[in-house]
Amino acid sequence: MIVVDRIATMQALMRQYRREGKTIGFVPTMGYLHDGHAALIDRAREENDIVVLSIFVNPLQFGPNEDFARYPRDFERDRRIAGQHGVDVLFHPEVDEMYPAPLSVQAVVKARTDVLCGRSRPGHFDGVATVLIKLFNIVMPDRAYFGMKDAQQVAVVAGLIRDFNFPIELVPVPTVRETDGLAKSSRNVYLSPQERKEAPALYEALKAAAAAVDRGERNAEAIRRLVREHIEAHTHAEIDYVEVCSYPDLTPLSALAGTVLIAVAVRFAGARLIDNIMVELPAADRRGE
Amino acid sequence: MIVVDRIATMQALMRQYRREGKTIGFVPTMGYLHDGHAALIDRAREENDIVVLSIFVNPLQFGPNEDFARYPRDFERDRRIAGQHGVDVLFHPEVDEMYPAPLSVQAVVKARTDVLCGRSRPGHFDGVATVLIKLFNIVMPDRAYFGMKDAQQVAVVAGLIRDFNFPIELVPVPTVRETDGLAKSSRNVYLSPQERKEAPALYEALKAAAAAVDRGERNAEAIRRLVREHIEAHTHAEIDYVEVCSYPDLTPLSALAGTVLIAVAVRFAGARLIDNIMVELPAADRRGE
Repeated sequence: MIVVDRIATMQALMRQYRREGKTIGFVPTMGYLHDGHAALIDRAREENDIVVLSIFVNPLQFGPNEDFARYPRDFERDRRIAGQHGVDVLFHPEVDEMYPAPLSVQAVVKARTDVLCGRSRPGHFDGVATVLIKLFNIVMPDRAYFGMKDAQQVAVVAGLIRDFNFPIELVPVPTVRETDGLAKSSRNVYLSPQERKEAPALYEALKAAAAAVDRGERNAEAIRRLVREHIEAHTHAEIDYVEVCSYPDLTPLSALAGTVLIAVAVRFAGARLIDNIMVELPAADRRGE
Repeated sequence: MIVVDRIATMQALMRQYRREGKTIGFVPTMGYLHDGHAALIDRAREENDIVVLSIFVNPLQFGPNEDFARYPRDFERDRRIAGQHGVDVLFHPEVDEMYPAPLSVQAVVKARTDVLCGRSRPGHFDGVATVLIKLFNIVMPDRAYFGMKDAQQVAVVAGLIRDFNFPIELVPVPTVRETDGLAKSSRNVYLSPQERKEAPALYEALKAAAAAVDRGERNAEAIRRLVREHIEAHTHAEIDYVEVCSYPDLTPLSALAGTVLIAVAVRFAGARLIDNIMVELPAADRRGE
């Protein structure tokens, strides 16, 4: 495994792979790797000649009151995991290498940001889009792998790739969970033992919502209430949002139809957690509208 | 010469060239080609295996009261000129191909836009940056060629390429002029005979300013007054701006030092024209600041 911390070195290396006709799979991460990341790497390993993993905690996507400084970091452990999963190139730049000076240009995400996490994290997806433009130009991948745990991020990145014509295929990968259902997340380490015990209630609530949809429930407000009440009954977390929206447009729904995302974000004292579930229904009947 | 109007076709073709190890030079234009464009194409022809010319009048960089609809277009003439100058691939997409739906993400230029043309054309450089991100991802060039007539555009594009890490070398090409000094421009066709007669006064004024600098003038206000008075004395144009700033930072100067851009924009009844001249001076003496 080659470890690279300079942009120019990466670009020279990636150009070389491209000249050799090799396909490149890219897994962008903020490090502190867990099984969710491993699933992305494994999938990229299956589908490409070269697998590139980036580890960069991107200050641009953290708000001033968010956890940039205390976001967990353990590069030696990450390097070991990357090697075990067959990563070919590990790109690990310093902040000064990625942002040597104030940016003269930035990406602004105009759609899909007034819902879900976009609402409580203003500028977050602008920061994500901006760093991804940079990383895509540095890594020049054929495919990029993103976890569905952050479904809104997947939808925003799909828009970024399509609207800016990046010659990249986005591969969404299903959420990986602990045996008790908690979605794997780098931030889980910050949960207290009690919070860790309560946290599986997020996915339980989402599964109960999906079961209600299976039984015929089509009212979004009823679904939101069901999720909210389950979380309130089983955790001390403060609910940030429970939303029911179309996917990938992320339009809030009143009646469920088509591909539906049920998503939740909560704040424990130790960490903010997100999770979601998707349900597939027939498309909306638009007669009479 | 291959003429392409679909993005997917372009990307497949450009990938093929890259696999073959060919270098790609790219000249992005809005068409209605003149000798200024020809100079860009000729330079690209000298330096690359493959020369790509794009012709796309980009609605995103025109303001609501600007001349998008009446911007001059003559594709058959452009195609002939492109062929004569050895263009390999002419990319000529429709607006619907480039913008099939509202963009979910856009580029916003944050520096160098509160001066020169940026001041009177709000959003112009956001539109330029956005279409260039798309075109860079479609054409995947090694080098991109831009005329120095729009020096601010060159500075903004340099920032875009650097800050977003596009693996592209920007090649600025000197302004091409008519024998009487008027900078070549697609918009020159809209000048009345009288305006056409007056228009060389822009470059005369800029040359007079450079001569004054040669004689030792270092006061920016004196330079601006000199340019302004020359244009007012010799044309009926309304002056949009006369500015003296550092290059490529585009910081307005009070005392001339370093690489200095003297730039002018005027409105004739028929067309808005821009021109500029650069002067090289020793860097500012910063002792005592």
